[in-house]
Amino acid sequence: MGFGVFFVRPIGLVAGVKRMIVVMKPEAKDKDLQHVVDKIEALGLKTMVAYGTNRRVVCCLGDKRGVDMDTLATAPGVEAVVPVLAPYKIASREIKPDRTVIPIDGHSIGGTRVGVIAGPCTVESREQILETAHFVKEHGAVALRGGAFKPRTSPYSFQGLREKGLEYLALAREATGLSVVTEVMSPEQAPLVAGYADVLQIGTRNMQNFALLEAVGATDKPVLLKRGMSASINEFLLAAEYILSNGNQQVILCERGIRTFEDHTRFTLSLSAVPALKQLTHLPVVVDPSHSTGKQDLVLPMARAAIAAGADGLLVEVHPNPEEAILDGAQSITFPQYAEMMRQVKAIAQAIGRDI
Amino acid sequence: MGFGVFFVRPIGLVAGVKRMIVVMKPEAKDKDLQHVVDKIEALGLKTMVAYGTNRRVVCCLGDKRGVDMDTLATAPGVEAVVPVLAPYKIASREIKPDRTVIPIDGHSIGGTRVGVIAGPCTVESREQILETAHFVKEHGAVALRGGAFKPRTSPYSFQGLREKGLEYLALAREATGLSVVTEVMSPEQAPLVAGYADVLQIGTRNMQNFALLEAVGATDKPVLLKRGMSASINEFLLAAEYILSNGNQQVILCERGIRTFEDHTRFTLSLSAVPALKQLTHLPVVVDPSHSTGKQDLVLPMARAAIAAGADGLLVEVHPNPEEAILDGAQSITFPQYAEMMRQVKAIAQAIGRDI
Amino acid sequence: MGFGVFFVRPIGLVAGVKRMIVVMKPEAKDKDLQHVVDKIEALGLKTMVAYGTNRRVVCCLGDKRGVDMDTLATAPGVEAVVPVLAPYKIASREIKPDRTVIPIDGHSIGGTRVGVIAGPCTVESREQILETAHFVKEHGAVALRGGAFKPRTSPYSFQGLREKGLEYLALAREATGLSVVTEVMSPEQAPLVAGYADVLQIGTRNMQNFALLEAVGATDKPVLLKRGMSASINEFLLAAEYILSNGNQQVILCERGIRTFEDHTRFTLSLSAVPALKQLTHLPVVVDPSHSTGKQDLVLPMARAAIAAGADGLLVEVHPNPEEAILDGAQSITFPQYAEMMRQVKAIAQAIGRDI
Amino acid sequence: MGFGVFFVRPIGLVAGVKRMIVVMKPEAKDKDLQHVVDKIEALGLKTMVAYGTNRRVVCCLGDKRGVDMDTLATAPGVEAVVPVLAPYKIASREIKPDRTVIPIDGHSIGGTRVGVIAGPCTVESREQILETAHFVKEHGAVALRGGAFKPRTSPYSFQGLREKGLEYLALAREATGLSVVTEVMSPEQAPLVAGYADVLQIGTRNMQNFALLEAVGATDKPVLLKRGMSASINEFLLAAEYILSNGNQQVILCERGIRTFEDHTRFTLSLSAVPALKQLTHLPVVVDPSHSTGKQDLVLPMARAAIAAGADGLLVEVHPNPEEAILDGAQSITFPQYAEMMRQVKAIAQAIGRDI
Repeated sequence: MGFGVFFVRPIGLVAGVKRMIVVMKPEAKDKDLQHVVDKIEALGLKTMVAYGTNRRVVCCLGDKRGVDMDTLATAPGVEAVVPVLAPYKIASREIKPDRTVIPIDGHSIGGTRVGVIAGPCTVESREQILETAHFVKEHGAVALRGGAFKPRTSPYSFQGLREKGLEYLALAREATGLSVVTEVMSPEQAPLVAGYADVLQIGTRNMQNFALLEAVGATDKPVLLKRGMSASINEFLLAAEYILSNGNQQVILCERGIRTFEDHTRFTLSLSAVPALKQLTHLPVVVDPSHSTGKQDLVLPMARAAIAAGADGLLVEVHPNPEEAILDGAQSITFPQYAEMMRQVKAIAQAIGRDI
Repeated sequence: MGFGVFFVRPIGLVAGVKRMIVVMKPEAKDKDLQHVVDKIEALGLKTMVAYGTNRRVVCCLGDKRGVDMDTLATAPGVEAVVPVLAPYKIASREIKPDRTVIPIDGHSIGGTRVGVIAGPCTVESREQILETAHFVKEHGAVALRGGAFKPRTSPYSFQGLREKGLEYLALAREATGLSVVTEVMSPEQAPLVAGYADVLQIGTRNMQNFALLEAVGATDKPVLLKRGMSASINEFLLAAEYILSNGNQQVILCERGIRTFEDHTRFTLSLSAVPALKQLTHLPVVVDPSHSTGKQDLVLPMARAAIAAGADGLLVEVHPNPEEAILDGAQSITFPQYAEMMRQVKAIAQAIGRDI
Repeated sequence: MGFGVFFVRPIGLVAGVKRMIVVMKPEAKDKDLQHVVDKIEALGLKTMVAYGTNRRVVCCLGDKRGVDMDTLATAPGVEAVVPVLAPYKIASREIKPDRTVIPIDGHSIGGTRVGVIAGPCTVESREQILETAHFVKEHGAVALRGGAFKPRTSPYSFQGLREKGLEYLALAREATGLSVVTEVMSPEQAPLVAGYADVLQIGTRNMQNFALLEAVGATDKPVLLKRGMSASINEFLLAAEYILSNGNQQVILCERGIRTFEDHTRFTLSLSAVPALKQLTHLPVVVDPSHSTGKQDLVLPMARAAIAAGADGLLVEVHPNPEEAILDGAQSITFPQYAEMMRQVKAIAQAIGRDI
Repeated sequence: MGFGVFFVRPIGLVAGVKRMIVVMKPEAKDKDLQHVVDKIEALGLKTMVAYGTNRRVVCCLGDKRGVDMDTLATAPGVEAVVPVLAPYKIASREIKPDRTVIPIDGHSIGGTRVGVIAGPCTVESREQILETAHFVKEHGAVALRGGAFKPRTSPYSFQGLREKGLEYLALAREATGLSVVTEVMSPEQAPLVAGYADVLQIGTRNMQNFALLEAVGATDKPVLLKRGMSASINEFLLAAEYILSNGNQQVILCERGIRTFEDHTRFTLSLSAVPALKQLTHLPVVVDPSHSTGKQDLVLPMARAAIAAGADGLLVEVHPNPEEAILDGAQSITFPQYAEMMRQVKAIAQAIGRDI
C-alpha cells in the first residue's frame, strides 16, 4: 500500500446513478480530499474515491440530478468536476426507448410517415391564409402554420394580426380540415392561443422562457419547441423537459438553425442535430429549412437533406406571393416551389423506407 | 449618353433618412428595376436609382424603419439588399448625444464614477444576504444583487426562494441602504418584483422575451438588461428599444459573455462591445465578469479589463462561502477577493480619470 | 437645388464593375466628400456620387479587385464602406456557367454520378490499405483516401507513415485501379506527394496556407480543397482562386464542418454550404461526414443528407477495424457500415435523378 | 458484494499520469469491460477500474500523451472517453512554474514591464517605415512590426514588398535600434526572414501550419505565435509546443481575436484568454487590438483592457497616414493616437504594479 497504490472506499447498495467525477490536483492534500468527500455526502450522495499514482478521483453516486456540484470546483485541491450523466429524464430514451408519435387530427408527427407543416410566416389576411391552406392541403401537408402573434427584433416592426390572425387560422382549419400550428409568446397568451390552435409553437427566442414552457406544459395541446439559436442539444432537451415535467407529454422538437460566424445564410442549419437527438430522445424531430437559411433557393435542398438525415417532418414557409409577404418573404417559397418540394421530399422519404 | 453612362432619377425634398440600398443583378431588366422601384414607393418611401456600367443600385429614402424590405431580395433581378441605418431610435446617440445617468438611491450608474453592483447569485437565507450586503456596502458597492426567481436550465434545479427571497433583499436594503437589483422572469411577476426591487434585471435568456420587455418598460423602475448570449449589438439595442419605447427611459445595458466555440470559459466576454455600445448609445454599459467567465479566478482580471475598456460599472457575484453556494459558486468570489477587486478596480478607474 | 436635393456627377464609359459603396455620414462636409472621391480616383477607379437628403453615397466603379478600400473607412466624414461584388473570378459561375467535371482515372467528380472517395484516415500498414482498397472498390468507391503525412494538433502524436505510406497507397492503386487521394502539408512536399497521388488533398488547417495553395496550383494534379473550419464561403472560394489562378483548373471543394459552440459533434457540418457553393461556383463540391461529426453513428445519416443536399460526392473514412485505428477510429465506419452506406446513398442519389 | 457494490482492481506503482477516463454504458458486459482494459494495457498503459452501482469507469494511467484513445469510444459498451490532462508539456507551468522572459535587444517581453510592438501592417516604402520607426521608438515601443510577406485572402491583393520590405525593416533597425518583428509564411522563407528579423511572426492562418512551426522551431529567433482565429486554448498551446519541442524555447503568444457571430468587430477579442493562458503556461502573452477589432476607434480601449487583463504587451498597427495605408488602414492608428495610447496604457500598467 505504498505510494501510487490506490484503494477504494467501499460503499453500500446505492439505487441511483453516478453523476459527477471530481478530479483532484496532484498536490491535493488528504484533508482536501476528505473535504470534498464530506461535502458531497452532506448533499446526500454517496462517494467513491479512486486513488491513482499522482491524482485522486472522487466519483459521486446518487440520483440527485438537481444538485449543483459546480461549487466543488473551487474547493481546495480540486482540478476539475466532470459530469457523467445527462440531466434530463422524461425526454430520455433511457426512460422510454420507443418513439413518441404525436397525433394531429388524423395525421401524426413521429411515425413512419414524414409530416410537413406548411404555411405563411404571418397570417396577413383571410384570403391569404385560406388560399395557402387549400394549396398545401392538396399537396400533402399535415398541418397549417401561420403566425398571429409575431416576435419581432424591433418594436417598430409589424407584430402580427394577433387574435384576428387566430380567427383566420380557425377559419382555414374549418375550410380544409388542417390542424393549426401557431406561436404563443407569453404565459398569459397561452389560454387564448390554445383556444384556437391545435399545436402551440414556442419560438427560438423563447426556448428558455421557463414561465412560458411551464404554461404550455400545463395545457393539453401538443407543443412544437424550436431550438434556441445558441442552445446545445442538452439545453434543448432540458427545455423540453420543462414541458414534459409539467404534465404535457406531447413535444415536437424543431431544429431551426444555430448562430455561427457563417454569413451566407441567416443561421447555420445543423442537420447532425437530427440523428443526434433521435439517439437521445424518443420525441419526434422536425426541421425548419426556411428560417434557418433565410433564403428561398436553399429551402428545397435543405428540405431534402433534412428528411435524408432522418427528420420526422418539416416546418416550411409558403406564401402565395413571397415578394408581397409582410414578413420573411425572402425565405418563403411559392406554391409551385412547394409542390415541387413535396414531390422531391417524397422521393427522398421513400428512398429511406418512409413516405409522406 | 451611351452604354455605361448613368443618370439618377431626381427626387424632391425628403425629411427622412436612407435605409436600404438595393443592388440589382447585371442581367436585371428594366422592368425588374421598375418593379423594385414601384414596390418601394408603394410602401411610402422615396427611391433614387444610380445607373452604373453594369449594375444598377436603388437607394430607398424615408423614415419608415418598421417596414420590412427583405422581401425585395426575391424580386426578379435583385442581387442584394443592403441596410444602411441602424433601426433603433430612442437608444441612439444620434437622437440623444449626451450620456444617460441613472440614479440609484444616492448613487448612479453612467456618470463619472464606476458603479459596482455586488451580491450572491441567489438569495439563500436571511443571514447570507445580510452578511453579504454589509460587506459589499462597506467596500464600495452602489447596489446589492441577488436572485430570488432563478432561471434554470433544468426543471429539476433549485429555482430560488422566490417571494421569500425578495423579502430578504428588502431587509438587506433596510439594513444597509443599498439599492436592490433582482431578476424578473415573466410579465406577471413584474409588479411583484417591482414592489420589492429598485432595479429590475432581465436575464440573457429573456433578452428577446418581448412581452417581458414591454412589461418592465411599463414600470417606473430602472432596468438592467443583459445581452443575449447570441445577440448582436444591433439586436441588443433593439431589445433596449422595446423598453424605451414603452416609456421607461432608464435602461442599463450589461455585457455578460457570448456563446462561442471557446471552452476555457463558460462564455466569451466580448469587451469590445463596451466601447462599441458607448459609440452607438447614450445608455450606460456595465459588465458581468462572473457569469461570462464562470471561473472565480478570472473575475478579477476581467473586472479590471472591463473598467479599462470604459464600462460604467460591474455586476459581480460575491458569496460569504462560494463553495457552499447553492448556485454558481464556481464563479463567485469571496469577501477578501471582493475587497481586493475593489482596490484594483479603483486604481484602474483612477488611471483613466474616473473613480469608484 | 435646395436642401435635400441631389445630383449625380456624370461619368463616361467604364469597362469595369462597381465594387464598393462608400456611405458618408450626415455631417460630412463637401471637402470630405471630395477627398473620398479624389482618393478613389487616384487608385484608377471611377466614382459616382449619389446625393440624398441627409447622406451622400459614393459608388466606385472599375475592375481593380486587388485594391483595398477599407482605408476609406477612416477618412473624415465616412460612415461605412460596403462591398458589392465577390472578389473571386475564375471560380465564379459568372465567368464559367457550366459545371466543371474532374476526371479521375475512368471516373469523375462533378458529373451526374455521385463519387465516393473512401479509405482509412491514416495508412497504417500494407495489409490495412490493401484490404480497405479492395473492399471500397468492390462497393462502388471512385477513389481511395488515406493519409501518409498527417497534420496533428500535438507534436507528440503519430505523424503518419510518410513516404512509406505513399508507397502503400501506390501499391493499393496498382492492385485495385483506384485513384489515390492523399494530403500534402507543405510546399516542399508537393512534388513528392504528386509523384504518388492522383489527387492532392489540402487539409482544413491549411486552407489559407497560401504558399501551399500556390505549390499545388503549379502541379497538374486535381486538388481536393477542404474548407477551413472557420472560413466563410467567400474565403473558401478565394482559397480555391489561389489554386486556379496558378494555372490548375482542377479543384474539388470539400465541406468538412465548421467550428461552432455545438458540443455534440466535433464540428458542425454546414450542409447549406453545398447548394450555396453550387450557386456561386462551377467547381464540384463534396462532403466529409466523418471529420465533421467525429462520430461513427452520425456518418450514415449525414452522408445521406449531403447527397440529398446536392453534393457531388463524399469523402468518408472506412477502416477494417475502427477500434484498432491509430487515428480517428471514433469516426471511421466499418466495412459492413460502408456497404450499407453505399446502398442507402445510392437510393438517395437515384431519388434526385443522379446515381452512384 | 451484492448489486451496487463496487470494487477496484488494484494496480502497482506507476510513474506516469492519468490521462483518460473511460465511462462504460450501464448495459456494458463484463467482456466489454475486459476488452477495454486489454486494449489500454496493450498500449503500455496501466488501468484502474472503478465499479459503481450501474456504471463502471476505467481510468488509464501512464505518460503516453501521444497515444490516441478516441478509438475506444467505438468499443462495445463504451459510453464516453473523457480526457483528464492537457497534452502539452514544455509549454506547461507544471513543468516550468516561473515565467519566461524573452529578451529583445535590450528590452524584453514577459517581465514586469509591458512591451509594445508597433508599426504599420505592411512595409510600404523606406520613408514610411523609417518615419514610423522613429516615432514609435520615441514613444516607448520595444520593437517595430511591419509585414514584408503578407498573407492575403485573395490572390489578387497586394502581397507585400517581400525581400525589399525586409531590407527596409533592417534599415529601420539600424536607424532606431528597434528590434524587428515580421511574418514568415512558409518553411522555405524561414532562413531568409530570420536573416533580417529579430522576432519571427506566425500569422493566425498558419497557427497549425505544422511544417512552418517546425521550421521556426529550428531557428534561434524568438517566435511571436498568433492564436488561430478558431483555435482553442489547448490547440494554441499545442501549436506553441511544436516550436518548443523543436528546440526553440522563445515563444511569445498573441491573442488576436476569434471568429464568432459578432459583426460589430472583425473578430471577437477574447481577453479572458490572457489570464487563462497565464495560469496554464509560463510563456509571455501579448494582445493585438488592431486586427481583432478591425476598427481604429476601438484600438485604444482594447489596448487598455488588454493590459488591465494582465497582458505582457501589445502588437499594434500604427501608420503615418492610415487613410493612405495600402492595407488595413481601417484599423491602424495615427501617430497622435499612438502617443495617446502609450500614455493611457502606461497609466493602466502602473495601476496594476507594472510599467511600460
